[in-house]
Amino acid sequence: MPPAPKSGDALFASVDRVNAELFTLTYGAMVRQLLTDLEEVEEVNKQLDQMGYNIGTRLVDEFLAKSNVSRCVDFKETADVIAKLGFKMFLGVTATVTNWDAEGTSCSLVLEDNPLVDFVELPDTCQGLQYCNLLSGVIRGALEMVSMKTEVTWVRDMLRGDDAYEMRVKLIKHVPEEYPYKDDD
Amino acid sequence: MPPAPKSGDALFASVDRVNAELFTLTYGAMVRQLLTDLEEVEEVNKQLDQMGYNIGTRLVDEFLAKSNVSRCVDFKETADVIAKLGFKMFLGVTATVTNWDAEGTSCSLVLEDNPLVDFVELPDTCQGLQYCNLLSGVIRGALEMVSMKTEVTWVRDMLRGDDAYEMRVKLIKHVPEEYPYKDDD
Repeated sequence: MPPAPKSGDALFASVDRVNAELFTLTYGAMVRQLLTDLEEVEEVNKQLDQMGYNIGTRLVDEFLAKSNVSRCVDFKETADVIAKLGFKMFLGVTATVTNWDAEGTSCSLVLEDNPLVDFVELPDTCQGLQYCNLLSGVIRGALEMVSMKTEVTWVRDMLRGDDAYEMRVKLIKHVPEEYPYKDDD
Repeated sequence: MPPAPKSGDALFASVDRVNAELFTLTYGAMVRQLLTDLEEVEEVNKQLDQMGYNIGTRLVDEFLAKSNVSRCVDFKETADVIAKLGFKMFLGVTATVTNWDAEGTSCSLVLEDNPLVDFVELPDTCQGLQYCNLLSGVIRGALEMVSMKTEVTWVRDMLRGDDAYEMRVKLIKHVPEEYPYKDDD
Protein backbone atom coordinates (compact mmCIF):
# COMPACT_ATOMS: atom_id res chain seq x y z
CA MET A 1 0.00 0.00 0.00
CA PRO A 2 1.37 3.42 -0.85
CA PRO A 3 1.33 5.92 2.04
CA ALA A 4 -1.86 7.93 2.41
CA PRO A 5 -1.82 11.45 0.95
CA LYS A 6 -0.90 14.06 3.52
CA SER A 7 -3.33 16.69 4.73
CA GLY A 8 -2.84 20.21 3.39
CA ASP A 9 -1.71 21.44 6.78
CA ALA A 10 0.83 18.65 7.22
CA LEU A 11 2.08 19.29 3.71
CA PHE A 12 2.54 23.01 4.29
CA ALA A 13 4.32 22.31 7.57
CA SER A 14 6.73 19.95 5.80
CA VAL A 15 8.17 22.47 3.35
CA ASP A 16 10.68 25.29 3.73
CA ARG A 17 8.94 28.63 3.87
CA VAL A 18 9.69 32.33 3.59
CA ASN A 19 7.81 35.41 4.73
CA ALA A 20 4.70 36.01 2.63
CA GLU A 21 5.16 39.78 2.60
CA LEU A 22 8.63 39.40 1.12
CA PHE A 23 7.15 37.21 -1.61
CA THR A 24 4.27 39.60 -2.24
CA LEU A 25 6.51 42.65 -2.50
CA THR A 26 9.01 40.83 -4.71
CA TYR A 27 6.22 39.74 -7.02
CA GLY A 28 4.88 43.30 -7.10
CA ALA A 29 8.31 44.66 -7.99
CA MET A 30 8.53 42.14 -10.80
CA VAL A 31 5.15 43.09 -12.25
CA ARG A 32 6.08 46.77 -12.07
CA GLN A 33 9.35 46.08 -13.85
CA LEU A 34 7.57 44.12 -16.58
CA LEU A 35 5.15 47.00 -17.11
CA THR A 36 8.12 49.34 -17.51
CA ASP A 37 10.10 47.09 -19.83
CA LEU A 38 7.34 45.59 -21.97
CA GLU A 39 5.05 48.64 -21.98
CA GLU A 40 1.98 46.77 -23.25
CA VAL A 41 -0.28 45.35 -20.52
CA GLU A 42 -1.22 42.47 -22.81
CA GLU A 43 2.45 41.53 -23.15
CA VAL A 44 2.85 41.60 -19.38
CA ASN A 45 -0.14 39.26 -19.00
CA LYS A 46 1.44 36.83 -21.45
CA GLN A 47 4.82 37.00 -19.80
CA LEU A 48 3.42 36.39 -16.31
CA ASP A 49 1.50 33.40 -17.62
CA GLN A 50 4.60 32.00 -19.31
CA MET A 51 6.73 32.50 -16.18
CA GLY A 52 4.06 30.76 -14.14
CA TYR A 53 3.94 27.90 -16.64
CA ASN A 54 7.69 27.37 -16.34
CA ILE A 55 7.50 27.49 -12.54
CA GLY A 56 4.58 25.06 -12.51
CA THR A 57 6.51 22.48 -14.51
CA ARG A 58 9.13 22.55 -11.74
CA LEU A 59 6.87 22.78 -8.68
CA VAL A 60 4.86 19.72 -9.66
CA ASP A 61 7.87 17.54 -8.82
CA GLU A 62 8.05 18.87 -5.28
CA PHE A 63 4.32 18.43 -4.95
CA LEU A 64 4.34 14.79 -6.08
CA ALA A 65 7.39 13.96 -4.01
CA LYS A 66 6.00 15.39 -0.78
CA SER A 67 2.24 14.96 -0.99
CA ASN A 68 2.05 11.16 -1.52
CA VAL A 69 -0.67 11.91 -4.06
CA SER A 70 -0.71 9.31 -6.80
CA ARG A 71 -2.67 9.32 -10.05
CA CYS A 72 -6.08 11.01 -9.73
CA VAL A 73 -9.03 8.99 -11.02
CA ASP A 74 -10.56 11.89 -12.90
CA PHE A 75 -10.43 15.63 -13.43
CA LYS A 76 -12.74 16.24 -10.49
CA GLU A 77 -10.31 14.61 -8.12
CA THR A 78 -7.49 16.56 -9.75
CA ALA A 79 -9.28 19.85 -9.11
CA ASP A 80 -9.85 18.92 -5.46
CA VAL A 81 -6.20 18.06 -5.01
CA ILE A 82 -5.12 21.40 -6.46
CA ALA A 83 -7.59 23.32 -4.31
CA LYS A 84 -6.96 21.59 -1.00
CA LEU A 85 -3.36 20.41 -1.24
CA GLY A 86 -1.64 22.34 -4.03
CA PHE A 87 -2.64 25.82 -2.94
CA LYS A 88 -2.00 24.93 0.68
CA MET A 89 1.46 23.53 0.02
CA PHE A 90 2.66 26.56 -1.93
CA LEU A 91 0.68 29.55 -0.70
CA GLY A 92 -0.62 28.36 2.65
CA VAL A 93 -4.25 28.95 1.61
CA THR A 94 -6.98 26.77 0.14
CA ALA A 95 -9.48 27.22 -2.66
CA THR A 96 -13.05 26.13 -3.22
CA VAL A 97 -13.94 24.09 -6.29
CA THR A 98 -17.25 25.13 -7.80
CA ASN A 99 -19.28 25.72 -10.97
CA TRP A 100 -18.64 22.39 -12.67
CA ASP A 101 -19.93 22.05 -16.22
CA ALA A 102 -22.08 19.05 -17.15
CA GLU A 103 -19.16 17.13 -18.69
CA GLY A 104 -16.97 17.45 -15.62
CA THR A 105 -14.15 18.99 -17.64
CA SER A 106 -14.38 22.59 -16.52
CA CYS A 107 -14.63 24.13 -13.06
CA SER A 108 -13.81 27.21 -11.04
CA LEU A 109 -11.27 27.58 -8.25
CA VAL A 110 -12.27 30.36 -5.86
CA LEU A 111 -9.45 31.57 -3.64
CA GLU A 112 -10.39 32.28 -0.05
CA ASP A 113 -7.28 34.33 0.44
CA ASN A 114 -4.72 35.49 -2.10
CA PRO A 115 -1.25 36.29 -0.73
CA LEU A 116 -0.17 37.62 -4.12
CA VAL A 117 -2.25 40.75 -3.85
CA ASP A 118 -1.73 42.04 -0.32
CA PHE A 119 -1.11 45.82 -0.39
CA VAL A 120 -1.74 45.92 -4.15
CA GLU A 121 -3.80 48.58 -5.85
CA LEU A 122 -3.82 48.91 -9.61
CA PRO A 123 -3.52 52.39 -11.07
CA ASP A 124 -6.05 53.32 -13.74
CA THR A 125 -3.44 52.83 -16.44
CA CYS A 126 -3.26 49.09 -15.69
CA GLN A 127 -6.91 48.16 -15.86
CA GLY A 128 -6.32 45.35 -18.36
CA LEU A 129 -3.60 43.82 -16.23
CA GLN A 130 -4.15 40.22 -15.13
CA TYR A 131 -2.05 40.69 -12.04
CA CYS A 132 -2.29 37.08 -10.87
CA ASN A 133 -1.49 35.42 -14.19
CA LEU A 134 1.55 33.81 -12.61
CA LEU A 135 -0.77 31.63 -10.53
CA SER A 136 -2.94 30.47 -13.41
CA GLY A 137 0.24 29.78 -15.38
CA VAL A 138 1.61 27.65 -12.56
CA ILE A 139 -1.50 25.48 -12.60
CA ARG A 140 -1.42 25.12 -16.38
CA GLY A 141 2.27 24.16 -16.28
CA ALA A 142 1.90 21.72 -13.41
CA LEU A 143 -1.09 19.97 -15.01
CA GLU A 144 0.69 19.63 -18.33
CA MET A 145 3.44 17.72 -16.56
CA VAL A 146 0.86 15.18 -15.43
CA SER A 147 -0.61 14.79 -18.90
CA MET A 148 -3.47 17.29 -18.76
CA LYS A 149 -3.55 20.11 -21.26
CA THR A 150 -5.69 22.89 -19.82
CA GLU A 151 -6.75 26.47 -20.27
CA VAL A 152 -6.70 28.52 -17.07
CA THR A 153 -8.21 32.00 -17.07
CA TRP A 154 -9.28 34.52 -14.43
CA VAL A 155 -12.99 35.21 -14.45
CA ARG A 156 -13.21 37.24 -11.24
CA ASP A 157 -10.46 39.43 -9.81
CA MET A 158 -10.89 41.67 -6.76
CA LEU A 159 -8.18 44.00 -8.09
CA ARG A 160 -10.57 44.68 -10.95
CA GLY A 161 -13.55 45.26 -8.70
CA ASP A 162 -15.00 41.74 -8.49
CA ASP A 163 -16.04 40.19 -5.20
CA ALA A 164 -13.62 37.24 -5.30
CA TYR A 165 -10.64 35.67 -7.03
CA GLU A 166 -11.96 32.98 -9.35
CA MET A 167 -10.10 31.14 -12.02
CA ARG A 168 -11.64 28.85 -14.59
CA VAL A 169 -9.78 25.62 -15.30
CA LYS A 170 -10.82 23.84 -18.48
CA LEU A 171 -9.44 20.45 -19.46
CA ILE A 172 -8.64 20.48 -23.19
CA LYS A 173 -7.26 16.98 -23.56
CA HIS A 174 -5.22 14.28 -21.95
CA VAL A 175 -1.83 14.20 -23.57
CA PRO A 176 -0.02 10.87 -23.66
CA GLU A 177 2.96 10.75 -21.35
CA GLU A 178 6.29 10.90 -23.10
CA TYR A 179 8.62 8.18 -22.03
CA PRO A 180 12.33 8.80 -21.97
CA TYR A 181 12.87 5.52 -23.88
CA LYS A 182 11.51 4.04 -27.09
CA ASP A 183 8.56 1.76 -26.71
CA ASP A 184 8.86 -1.58 -28.50
CA ASP A 185 5.12 -2.15 -28.88
CA MET B 1 8.62 48.67 30.23
CA PRO B 2 8.27 47.87 26.54
CA PRO B 3 7.79 44.18 25.73
CA ALA B 4 11.01 42.20 25.27
CA PRO B 5 12.13 41.60 21.69
CA LYS B 6 10.92 38.29 20.33
CA SER B 7 13.28 35.46 19.46
CA GLY B 8 13.93 34.85 15.77
CA ASP B 9 12.00 31.60 15.84
CA ALA B 10 8.97 33.16 17.54
CA LEU B 11 9.10 36.02 15.05
CA PHE B 12 9.22 33.71 12.04
CA ALA B 13 6.34 31.67 13.47
CA SER B 14 4.25 34.84 13.86
CA VAL B 15 4.21 35.86 10.20
CA ASP B 16 2.32 34.57 7.17
CA ARG B 17 4.53 32.40 5.03
CA VAL B 18 4.64 30.87 1.58
CA ASN B 19 6.59 27.97 0.13
CA ALA B 20 10.28 28.79 -0.25
CA GLU B 21 10.60 26.97 -3.56
CA LEU B 22 7.82 29.07 -5.06
CA PHE B 23 9.67 32.20 -3.94
CA THR B 24 13.00 30.92 -5.25
CA LEU B 25 11.61 30.00 -8.66
CA THR B 26 9.69 33.27 -8.95
CA TYR B 27 12.82 35.23 -8.12
CA GLY B 28 14.77 33.19 -10.66
CA ALA B 29 12.16 33.90 -13.34
CA MET B 30 12.40 37.59 -12.54
CA VAL B 31 16.20 37.65 -12.84
CA ARG B 32 16.01 35.78 -16.15
CA GLN B 33 13.45 38.26 -17.43
CA LEU B 34 15.61 41.22 -16.39
CA LEU B 35 18.57 39.70 -18.22
CA THR B 36 16.45 39.40 -21.35
CA ASP B 37 14.94 42.88 -21.15
CA LEU B 38 17.91 44.89 -19.91
CA GLU B 39 20.63 42.89 -21.71
CA GLU B 40 23.52 44.33 -19.67
CA VAL B 41 24.42 42.35 -16.55
CA GLU B 42 25.49 45.55 -14.83
CA GLU B 43 22.03 47.04 -15.41
CA VAL B 44 20.41 43.93 -13.94
CA ASN B 45 22.60 44.24 -10.84
CA LYS B 46 21.49 47.85 -10.40
CA GLN B 47 17.85 47.03 -10.95
CA LEU B 48 17.85 44.16 -8.44
CA ASP B 49 19.49 46.42 -5.87
CA GLN B 50 16.91 49.15 -6.49
CA MET B 51 14.00 46.71 -6.23
CA GLY B 52 15.46 45.38 -3.00
CA TYR B 53 15.85 48.91 -1.67
CA ASN B 54 12.18 49.66 -2.35
CA ILE B 55 11.12 46.40 -0.73
CA GLY B 56 13.33 47.05 2.30
CA THR B 57 11.73 50.43 2.93
CA ARG B 58 8.40 48.57 3.22
CA LEU B 59 9.50 45.48 5.11
CA VAL B 60 11.09 47.47 7.91
CA ASP B 61 7.62 48.48 9.09
CA GLU B 62 6.51 44.87 9.48
CA PHE B 63 9.76 44.11 11.23
CA LEU B 64 9.44 46.92 13.77
CA ALA B 65 5.76 46.21 14.36
CA LYS B 66 6.24 42.51 15.03
CA SER B 67 9.71 42.18 16.57
CA ASN B 68 9.32 44.55 19.56
CA VAL B 69 12.82 45.76 18.72
CA SER B 70 13.28 49.39 19.69
CA ARG B 71 16.19 51.69 18.95
CA CYS B 72 19.55 49.89 18.81
CA VAL B 73 22.32 51.44 20.91
CA ASP B 74 24.91 51.21 18.17
CA PHE B 75 25.68 49.78 14.76
CA LYS B 76 26.94 46.55 16.31
CA GLU B 77 23.61 45.88 17.89
CA THR B 78 21.91 46.78 14.61
CA ALA B 79 23.99 44.20 12.75
CA ASP B 80 23.12 41.52 15.31
CA VAL B 81 19.43 42.32 15.01
CA ILE B 82 19.56 42.00 11.22
CA ALA B 83 21.50 38.74 11.38
CA LYS B 84 19.47 37.00 14.08
CA LEU B 85 16.00 38.50 13.75
CA GLY B 86 15.73 40.18 10.34
CA PHE B 87 16.96 37.28 8.25
CA LYS B 88 14.98 34.84 10.37
CA MET B 89 11.74 36.77 10.08
CA PHE B 90 11.86 37.08 6.31
CA LEU B 91 13.86 34.13 5.00
CA GLY B 92 13.71 31.70 7.90
CA VAL B 93 17.51 31.56 8.16
CA THR B 94 20.10 33.38 10.24
CA ALA B 95 23.43 34.99 9.48
CA THR B 96 26.72 35.31 11.34
CA VAL B 97 28.17 38.75 12.00
CA THR B 98 31.93 38.85 11.56
CA ASN B 99 34.98 40.79 10.35
CA TRP B 100 34.30 44.06 12.18
CA ASP B 101 36.61 46.92 11.34
CA ALA B 102 38.34 48.83 14.16
CA GLU B 103 35.79 51.68 14.11
CA GLY B 104 32.79 49.37 14.48
CA THR B 105 31.18 50.82 11.36
CA SER B 106 31.72 47.99 8.92
CA CYS B 107 31.06 44.25 9.22
CA SER B 108 30.23 41.15 7.26
CA LEU B 109 27.05 39.11 7.35
CA VAL B 110 27.68 35.51 6.37
CA LEU B 111 24.59 33.56 5.40
CA GLU B 112 24.39 30.03 6.69
CA ASP B 113 21.75 29.17 4.16
CA ASN B 114 20.45 31.17 1.23
CA PRO B 115 16.95 30.29 0.01
CA LEU B 116 17.33 32.66 -2.94
CA VAL B 117 19.79 30.42 -4.76
CA ASP B 118 18.37 26.91 -4.45
CA PHE B 119 18.55 25.16 -7.84
CA VAL B 120 20.40 28.12 -9.37
CA GLU B 121 23.40 27.75 -11.64
CA LEU B 122 24.73 30.71 -13.54
CA PRO B 123 25.61 30.21 -17.18
CA ASP B 124 29.02 31.47 -18.29
CA THR B 125 27.42 34.48 -19.95
CA CYS B 126 26.28 35.81 -16.55
CA GLN B 127 29.52 35.72 -14.63
CA GLY B 128 29.26 39.37 -13.56
CA LEU B 129 25.74 38.91 -12.28
CA GLN B 130 25.18 39.76 -8.60
CA TYR B 131 22.31 37.32 -8.34
CA CYS B 132 21.44 38.16 -4.73
CA ASN B 133 21.50 41.94 -5.06
CA LEU B 134 17.85 42.06 -4.05
CA LEU B 135 18.88 40.98 -0.54
CA SER B 136 21.61 43.56 -0.12
CA GLY B 137 19.21 46.19 -1.46
CA VAL B 138 16.59 45.18 1.11
CA ILE B 139 19.06 45.72 3.95
CA ARG B 140 20.17 49.08 2.56
CA GLY B 141 16.56 50.21 2.18
CA ALA B 142 15.47 49.01 5.59
CA LEU B 143 18.43 50.66 7.35
CA GLU B 144 17.82 53.96 5.58
CA MET B 145 14.31 53.99 7.04
CA VAL B 146 15.83 53.84 10.51
CA SER B 147 18.29 56.65 9.81
CA MET B 148 21.36 54.72 8.73
CA LYS B 149 22.82 55.33 5.32
CA THR B 150 24.85 52.27 4.34
CA GLU B 151 26.67 50.60 1.49
CA VAL B 152 25.95 46.90 1.17
CA THR B 153 28.01 44.81 -1.23
CA TRP B 154 28.60 41.10 -1.83
CA VAL B 155 32.17 40.03 -1.18
CA ARG B 156 31.69 36.27 -1.41
CA ASP B 157 29.10 34.48 -3.52
CA MET B 158 28.91 30.70 -3.92
CA LEU B 159 27.31 31.14 -7.33
CA ARG B 160 30.59 32.72 -8.38
CA GLY B 161 32.72 29.96 -6.89
CA ASP B 162 33.30 31.32 -3.38
CA ASP B 163 32.86 29.17 -0.29
CA ALA B 164 30.08 31.22 1.33
CA TYR B 165 27.60 34.07 0.89
CA GLU B 166 29.07 37.11 2.57
CA MET B 167 27.90 40.67 2.32
CA ARG B 168 29.75 43.67 3.61
CA VAL B 169 27.64 46.30 5.39
CA LYS B 170 29.31 49.67 5.83
CA LEU B 171 27.72 52.50 7.78
CA ILE B 172 28.23 55.74 5.85
CA LYS B 173 26.40 58.12 8.15
CA HIS B 174 23.47 58.58 10.44
CA VAL B 175 20.83 60.64 8.69
CA PRO B 176 18.57 62.77 10.85
CA GLU B 177 15.02 61.50 10.99
CA GLU B 178 12.54 63.54 9.07
CA TYR B 179 9.51 64.46 11.07
CA PRO B 180 6.17 64.84 9.39
CA TYR B 181 5.68 68.19 11.17
CA LYS B 182 7.71 71.37 11.58
CA ASP B 183 9.82 71.63 14.67
CA ASP B 184 9.46 74.88 16.62
CA ASP B 185 12.90 74.71 18.28
